Amino acid sequence: MAALTNPRSDRVKSVRALSRRSVREKTGRFLVEGPQGVREAVRWRPDLVVDVYVTPGAAGRYAADIVEPATAAGLFVHEVSDEVLAAMCDADAPQGVAAVCRVPESSLDAVLAEGPRLLVLLTNVRDPGNAGTVIRGADATGAAAVLVSEASVDVFSPKVVRSTVGSLFHLPVVTGLDIEATVARLRADGIRVLAADGAGERLLGDVDLTPSHAWVMGNEAWGLPEETRALCDEVVRVPIWGKAESLNLAMAATVCLYASAGAQNR
Amino acid sequence: MAALTNPRSDRVKSVRALSRRSVREKTGRFLVEGPQGVREAVRWRPDLVVDVYVTPGAAGRYAADIVEPATAAGLFVHEVSDEVLAAMCDADAPQGVAAVCRVPESSLDAVLAEGPRLLVLLTNVRDPGNAGTVIRGADATGAAAVLVSEASVDVFSPKVVRSTVGSLFHLPVVTGLDIEATVARLRADGIRVLAADGAGERLLGDVDLTPSHAWVMGNEAWGLPEETRALCDEVVRVPIWGKAESLNLAMAATVCLYASAGAQNR
Repeated sequence: MAALTNPRSDRVKSVRALSRRSVREKTGRFLVEGPQGVREAVRWRPDLVVDVYVTPGAAGRYAADIVEPATAAGLFVHEVSDEVLAAMCDADAPQGVAAVCRVPESSLDAVLAEGPRLLVLLTNVRDPGNAGTVIRGADATGAAAVLVSEASVDVFSPKVVRSTVGSLFHLPVVTGLDIEATVARLRADGIRVLAADGAGERLLGDVDLTPSHAWVMGNEAWGLPEETRALCDEVVRVPIWGKAESLNLAMAATVCLYASAGAQNR
Repeated sequence: MAALTNPRSDRVKSVRALSRRSVREKTGRFLVEGPQGVREAVRWRPDLVVDVYVTPGAAGRYAADIVEPATAAGLFVHEVSDEVLAAMCDADAPQGVAAVCRVPESSLDAVLAEGPRLLVLLTNVRDPGNAGTVIRGADATGAAAVLVSEASVDVFSPKVVRSTVGSLFHLPVVTGLDIEATVARLRADGIRVLAADGAGERLLGDVDLTPSHAWVMGNEAWGLPEETRALCDEVVRVPIWGKAESLNLAMAATVCLYASAGAQNR
């Protein structure tokens, strides 16, 4: 296999262009950077993988994890120079491997048809690291899906994808949802909707988390607006025992999701 | 009060130099950037505050939170131009306020003399955001102190300070500790030492967290080395219900600390 060595080729430019939201939306593709994400894509969703790019150094290091299973699945694995990979990627250190993938299709209908017990609904979340960490936490706690409102960060942007370390291939992530309609739909389906917010009157430990429920998580800086909280069944607060004023969004989501999974898997 | 407007003055240079570890160690000072951290410094540890710097725009915005209490406490509050503040700070957007503070003095002896029920010991933690988030989580869960081994990131570096959003002024953070000697000392004092590691044989939910204990948290990428785990009373694993391979350090620490605080504050 001849290695791709020209960092100014059209192919490199078209991969790099996936760092732009408009290009992702037009092509329906996104870039996964780094071995963890690519390995999970190849393992769980090879149907989404369009091209795998790997440097000579990484090809040996990730032979068993990535190159062999990708080849066995009939995927296109391209050897590229370090310069080409760097030119393709948003990250400073893509660790020798990246993959172009199709954006997975998912819908609220499909998620609800499975009778989900635990869901997360993100609204107005802007920080990529927070969004990615919440998706990873939803995955770790066995949530059925992550739902994302239209006013949130694009979860297929490079920073979010990196911080999910592969969880995007583990559970459905439904994007572009209207927050009001989604909350109403969840409640109509018998799913309790719990707003996580520092202004909540009920403490996390006092809420029965065994029935099916969805956590609504809001913006990093200003939490959930009053009109969103008013749509929910309850507004729940994570307790603070020390002098800290608050938790960041990813921490609060992790605590809530672990409380849910603990209650549902006892 | 005449505003400082020369971004190339010696004062600005000496503040900016605090982004270097060698300068922090030589001077015993560090820089706190942004309103949350400065407010907490002024509120909880005015004895540590050397100088507060505020832009005209921020002086009004944070009058009640920062400027008035700082002035009432006899602290030096300097008005600076936006250019001067930007030249002083590591952050792209310091939000109009920063403060030079003395590094707080603390010691393992002083922490142990208080009979701590919950502690965190960080070893080989390199990522500033993770370290800062763990300190914030320790604060939120009412931990008595955070202990940091000599092989970890400097917790007074700009990125860690920012991600603690003031928690450095809420609880003692003891740095430069030898990991072996510290674990031995904790155990000799009757504090159970629990290693948090994905390789743990016991699940978090199966551990009695009511007695005094310390969580040992290791490196982001490779966890705790075998020799460190061997020093601890138990190696404990946070459960994973979904397909995620792991949690990041900040998430794992948050889950462990909330489990501890929940058990100790029932």
